[in-house]
Amino acid sequence: MNIDSLDAISLSQRVNNQEITAIEVTGQFLDYVEQQNPRLNCFTTILKNQAFEQAKILDIRIAKGEDTGVLTGVPFAVKNLFDIEGIITLAGSKINKENSPATEDATAIKKLKAAGAILVGALNMDEYAYGFVTENSHYGATPNPHDLSRISGGSSGGSAAAVAASLVPFSLGSDTNGSIRVPAALCGVFGLKPTYGRLSRAGTFLFSNSLDHIGGFTRSVRDMAAIFDVLQGEDQDDPVCTSLPPQLCFDKLNDGIDGLTIAVAGDYFQEGAETAALEAVETIAKLLNTKEIISIPEAHRARAAAYIITACEGSNFHLENLRSRPQDFDPATRDRFLAGAFIPNTWYIQAQRFRRWYRDQVKEIFQKVDVIIAPTTPCVATTLGQEKMMINGEEILIRPNLGRFTQPLSFIGLPVVSFPILRANKLPLGVQLIAAPYQELKILQVAACLEEKLI
Amino acid sequence: MNIDSLDAISLSQRVNNQEITAIEVTGQFLDYVEQQNPRLNCFTTILKNQAFEQAKILDIRIAKGEDTGVLTGVPFAVKNLFDIEGIITLAGSKINKENSPATEDATAIKKLKAAGAILVGALNMDEYAYGFVTENSHYGATPNPHDLSRISGGSSGGSAAAVAASLVPFSLGSDTNGSIRVPAALCGVFGLKPTYGRLSRAGTFLFSNSLDHIGGFTRSVRDMAAIFDVLQGEDQDDPVCTSLPPQLCFDKLNDGIDGLTIAVAGDYFQEGAETAALEAVETIAKLLNTKEIISIPEAHRARAAAYIITACEGSNFHLENLRSRPQDFDPATRDRFLAGAFIPNTWYIQAQRFRRWYRDQVKEIFQKVDVIIAPTTPCVATTLGQEKMMINGEEILIRPNLGRFTQPLSFIGLPVVSFPILRANKLPLGVQLIAAPYQELKILQVAACLEEKLI
Repeated sequence: MNIDSLDAISLSQRVNNQEITAIEVTGQFLDYVEQQNPRLNCFTTILKNQAFEQAKILDIRIAKGEDTGVLTGVPFAVKNLFDIEGIITLAGSKINKENSPATEDATAIKKLKAAGAILVGALNMDEYAYGFVTENSHYGATPNPHDLSRISGGSSGGSAAAVAASLVPFSLGSDTNGSIRVPAALCGVFGLKPTYGRLSRAGTFLFSNSLDHIGGFTRSVRDMAAIFDVLQGEDQDDPVCTSLPPQLCFDKLNDGIDGLTIAVAGDYFQEGAETAALEAVETIAKLLNTKEIISIPEAHRARAAAYIITACEGSNFHLENLRSRPQDFDPATRDRFLAGAFIPNTWYIQAQRFRRWYRDQVKEIFQKVDVIIAPTTPCVATTLGQEKMMINGEEILIRPNLGRFTQPLSFIGLPVVSFPILRANKLPLGVQLIAAPYQELKILQVAACLEEKLI
Repeated sequence: MNIDSLDAISLSQRVNNQEITAIEVTGQFLDYVEQQNPRLNCFTTILKNQAFEQAKILDIRIAKGEDTGVLTGVPFAVKNLFDIEGIITLAGSKINKENSPATEDATAIKKLKAAGAILVGALNMDEYAYGFVTENSHYGATPNPHDLSRISGGSSGGSAAAVAASLVPFSLGSDTNGSIRVPAALCGVFGLKPTYGRLSRAGTFLFSNSLDHIGGFTRSVRDMAAIFDVLQGEDQDDPVCTSLPPQLCFDKLNDGIDGLTIAVAGDYFQEGAETAALEAVETIAKLLNTKEIISIPEAHRARAAAYIITACEGSNFHLENLRSRPQDFDPATRDRFLAGAFIPNTWYIQAQRFRRWYRDQVKEIFQKVDVIIAPTTPCVATTLGQEKMMINGEEILIRPNLGRFTQPLSFIGLPVVSFPILRANKLPLGVQLIAAPYQELKILQVAACLEEKLI
């Protein structure tokens, strides 16, 4: 049975129907990972024994007729900043190699395993999640499966590429300023960054406390809804995790979007991008029958403030190592951490004060619209090692500008789906579907509607 | 009728029973304020017309038999950082004099007026609430009514002294590091600093956003409970104000404290104080039949972190003025603001990170005890202008050390009553009754029990 192109739900159904065993699925995927990884460099750890052990138990339970969960027998992998019991949590760094192995799985992994999913490995990323390119100086670059001379985006580059290359049906990543959405767009897969605080971050290596989110990569909307449903719920181990009740989405995906008001983000979100990125948004707007354009005020300041908060909070976790062993950091990460450590408190506090003002402004916009559309990245995947690009005749730096359209949204914790735009003989792009806090259902419903029309 | 020594509830009952009119009450209090204020310097604004206007309307409504509220006809005054419609909100500064008058009352004032209380004026404070002495270089010092050569404490010195001197039955103040509790103790009145976020701060001039609380001063526990009940409730104008339902205390004050576990704070809270301050705690512990001692870990670090957060957040509101017109600040305030503006973000963020750790530690203590007892100040009121004092043979600065026992508690937003210890022929002191967040009822019940035994 050719299973590598199936989505998680189809695969799980086949395993549950005993058309194929969990052991067989695991074996096929692990063989493919081992064959492809030298070329794709997605995995930093492959968990062969753990995975087969899990599959064996599952098969016994399935044979007994037990309900083994919505993701039964589905292999998955996680960005290597998630704790995996018995494995060192690298977070893309060389320094972390000296740490002890994690003593338990991250909450998200526990929940997915409890739903029958099989953890097969840990995935490459930018060091400490501080980047948009996954060109890691310690563990190498993760190239784009669509064109191996190009980047997969970052910082969850390994997670996006692994799903795009069908090494796993789904994966987990994290997003601080765009680290799920940027690689999802550049690799042409679905990425969901839920509302800040919606999913537990317990057992993940933090980058920037007030900005970090976890989320998933999939090749179908229903997979995304299923995973999101499994991951929701209060967690005493994460003080940031909401106590609001979960909003289960899987069964409501196809309820239709007739009641939703959808608008395109104008101004800032229609500037500084390649024509193709703006055309992708136009295509989606047409499919959704909307001509309305709304303006998110001061988005450029939101991006600036997000930079400041990231640099300050990010460096704070590494002050001792920055003092004592700066040479052991990835140079790209180190220099920004060092700069962050010298920022005066006034900048940080003013960024936080602006954040409250901006959140209130955007809240008012969501009184009038349900979903906002914007590009995910300003461009397709650039070439590995490339530093600058031309946009509208202007030469700009690639790394900071990949997050141009994602940063002003994660800054205030809005839930966003990056919807993949797959184009024949061209590199993929992404379009962001954005909702008010805790309205993930709306963007998943819009994504489901678009998926039916487009894919 | 001699009404100046009555508490608010007694006074309100007399007005409601038409034994005396609101106009008469207002007139008597305002006469007394005008007579005493040149000596006591509590009031920076006296609101004669506004007060009589309010009293007139009240009397008409009372004559009609309307329910005019639990504080009917009770004069009160507020620290001059509360907005009063038509009045400039000074916040103890000269610079604010250039501002426009407030266009509406602060939420707290609106609520008290709606409960029948009559606003008669605004009260002196340390500039921008940054101090423990109310020796204001622009508006003069507010001396202690018990000994005019001494300080009333601060920063809500005018609020505490006005109640101690019976200029008003109750007043409002604000507490960031001890600014309600310190002057309450030194002036011998009740002070309540509720849980952070419990009462709306809308319409107050902020000092330090993550530390500011508002609260009240009274001469009886039932007054405190009545005012606290009136002030509670969600407020859309204050994003920090809790959406938890109010916990009304007035009717439950005398339900007894048999079920409560009470302990004395040891270690840090039994050091660095005059013998009298520690004896006051012992007296209270004996009355409450407790010998249990608990230790709040790292309280000295909590105080250090509170200093950092205060200086950083405090200075942030004044950066422009600190640059352009430093000479217009009170020197005591200016120098700390300037220092605060230069603190690196790393200190601020680490103070906030420590805060979360410390909150969790203290939370665990409150799994085992309901109420903790500690001194409010390390000493009685010191002399106006005095800079240093001797404690246990060591010479220390007065201003920073007045908050020694209050800072580690407001730092994590715990609710605290400062219970007045009135001693024949001696200056008053205070004992803090401390509970877990949102457990104001417990400390008010303990205060009611002590009041019955002591006062």
